Amino acid sequence: MAQNSVEKAPVTLLGLGAMGTALARTWLAGGHPLTVWNRTPARAAALSPEGARVADSAAAAVAANTLVVVCLLDDASVEEVLAGTDLADKDLVNLTTSTPAQARARAEWARERGARYLDGGIMAVPPMIGVPEIGGYVFYSGSRELFERHQQTLGVPAGTTYVGQDAGFAALHDVALLSAMYGMFAGAAHAFALIRKEDIDPASLAPLLADWLVAMAPTVHQTADQLRSGDYTKGVVSSLAMQVAGTPTFLDTAAQQGVSPELLSPYFTLMRRRLAEGSAEEDLTGVIDLLVRK
Amino acid sequence: MAQNSVEKAPVTLLGLGAMGTALARTWLAGGHPLTVWNRTPARAAALSPEGARVADSAAAAVAANTLVVVCLLDDASVEEVLAGTDLADKDLVNLTTSTPAQARARAEWARERGARYLDGGIMAVPPMIGVPEIGGYVFYSGSRELFERHQQTLGVPAGTTYVGQDAGFAALHDVALLSAMYGMFAGAAHAFALIRKEDIDPASLAPLLADWLVAMAPTVHQTADQLRSGDYTKGVVSSLAMQVAGTPTFLDTAAQQGVSPELLSPYFTLMRRRLAEGSAEEDLTGVIDLLVRK
Repeated sequence: MAQNSVEKAPVTLLGLGAMGTALARTWLAGGHPLTVWNRTPARAAALSPEGARVADSAAAAVAANTLVVVCLLDDASVEEVLAGTDLADKDLVNLTTSTPAQARARAEWARERGARYLDGGIMAVPPMIGVPEIGGYVFYSGSRELFERHQQTLGVPAGTTYVGQDAGFAALHDVALLSAMYGMFAGAAHAFALIRKEDIDPASLAPLLADWLVAMAPTVHQTADQLRSGDYTKGVVSSLAMQVAGTPTFLDTAAQQGVSPELLSPYFTLMRRRLAEGSAEEDLTGVIDLLVRK
Repeated sequence: MAQNSVEKAPVTLLGLGAMGTALARTWLAGGHPLTVWNRTPARAAALSPEGARVADSAAAAVAANTLVVVCLLDDASVEEVLAGTDLADKDLVNLTTSTPAQARARAEWARERGARYLDGGIMAVPPMIGVPEIGGYVFYSGSRELFERHQQTLGVPAGTTYVGQDAGFAALHDVALLSAMYGMFAGAAHAFALIRKEDIDPASLAPLLADWLVAMAPTVHQTADQLRSGDYTKGVVSSLAMQVAGTPTFLDTAAQQGVSPELLSPYFTLMRRRLAEGSAEEDLTGVIDLLVRK
C-alpha cells in the first residue's frame, strides 16, 4: 500500500447511521479518500459535498478500496449487505454491534471469502467521535497484523485498544463494560428514586453521587486481584458478613421512601447466598462465582 | 464553651467498634480531650495509653462533656446505651448507621430528653478515617446551629457535608450513595463473570472497567437536569428505543458466556416497560418513575 505522511489511506465505509456518518465525517476531515455506501442513498449523498465518493452499490464500494469498514444495524445486516460483494484480499473491519459468538462466526465467514478480519466494539456515542478529549475509543480484536497496518487510519475517529486475536474479544469487552455501566445506571436510578418524594434537589444529589461512584470505581482492581489469586479474603475492608448485616438498612429505607427494591435486591440476594455458603470473611467477589454456570 | 486555637474541644465517644476506634484515634492524635465508653471494656482500655479517659459507664461518659458522639451497632443499641444517661443540654451527634425514619425518630427522642441532635452518615470505611487525601466524609443533618458549632471538631476524622435540617437526610444521602455503589458493584460483577471462562486476565479488564465507569458516572448530572425539568428527552444521545433495541446483544452475550442475567435483566425489564408506555425518545430517566410507588 502506498501510504506516506501526505497521502492518507483510502477507506470504504458501509453504513451511514448516526455512528457511520460521524465516522465518515472524521475521515473526510482528516483528508482520507472515502468511498461510502448506504442502503438509503440520501444519507450517502449528504456526504458528497464534504468530499465522499458515493458508490452505487455495496459491491462497488467494496471494490473501491482494500480497507473496508462496515458499521451496520446488526450482524444479519452485515451478511445481507456483503453477500453480493467480492471480499477476496480485503481488509474487513466490522464495527457493527454484535455478540462475541456473532463476531467469531463473522470472522470465519470472512476468512472463507478470502478477507482478513478485524472486529470492533465502539465505546462511544456518535457525538464523541472525532473529539479525542472526550476519550471515546474502539476495542479491536482479530488479526493483530491487520490492526497494526490500519491503526493510524482507525485511530482518526476514536482511540484504538487491541484486546486479542480472538475475534470475539472486542465484542466481549464492549458488552462487559456497557453491562457494568447499566448496573451503575440502575444503582443511580435507585438513588434518585429514594429522594423523589423529599425536598431534595436532584441536582444537589448528582455531584455527591458522581463523586462517590468515581471514588468507588477503582475497587474493581481489588476484585481483579482477588479473582486472579482465588483468595477473596485478600485485603478485605468490609467483610461479606458485615455487608450482609447492613442490607436491611437499605431495604428498609427503600420501603420507607416508597421505592421498589427490584434493582437492589438481586445483588443482596446473591450476597446472602454466598454468605450462607460460609464465606463470612470474604469480600463481595464470590458473587461473581454465583453468576457463572458451572 | 471555652475553645480557642490552643485548647481543643473535648469529646465523649460511645462505641468503639472498628469505626469508633478509628474516630477515637484521630481525635486523640488531634489533641482533643476524649472520654470513651464501650460495652466491652477492653476496647476502651486499649485507647488509654493514647490519652483517652475511660469512663466506667455510659452515663459517666455522657456526663463528662457537652459534645457526645455515638457510633454503635444499630439504632436499637443507641436507645439501649443512652437509656440510663442524662442527655439534658447535651449536643448529641449520632453516627450510628440507621434509616431516615430511625434518624428522625431518634432526633425527636433526643429532643424530648433535652438534647440537641445531629445525625451523621459516614461515607468511609475505618481505614479512611483521619486520612483526608482519601476523601472520606460524613453527611450531617439536623440542627444547623449544632453542626456549625462543632464542624471543626467533627471535621478532624473526616470531611463534613451538611445536607439539611431534616434529621433523616444524612441517612438518606448515605443510603442513596451506597445503594448506587452496590448497583455499580453488581454491574462490575456481571462484567467479570462474562470473561470468567475466557483467556482474559481480570487485571487487564479492571483498568478498562474502572476508566469506563469513571467516564460514565457524570451522566447522573444529565439525569438530575431531566428530573428537575420533567423533560426526559432533554439532551438525549441514545434514546430509550435505541437502548432497548440493544438489550438482546447483552442478554445473548450473557447466555453465550454461561452467565446468569439476574443482575442485568431487572433494569432492562424496566427500560422495556417504560418504552411500552410510549417513551421512545426519552433517556433512561423514566425508569426512576417506575421505581417510586404512586
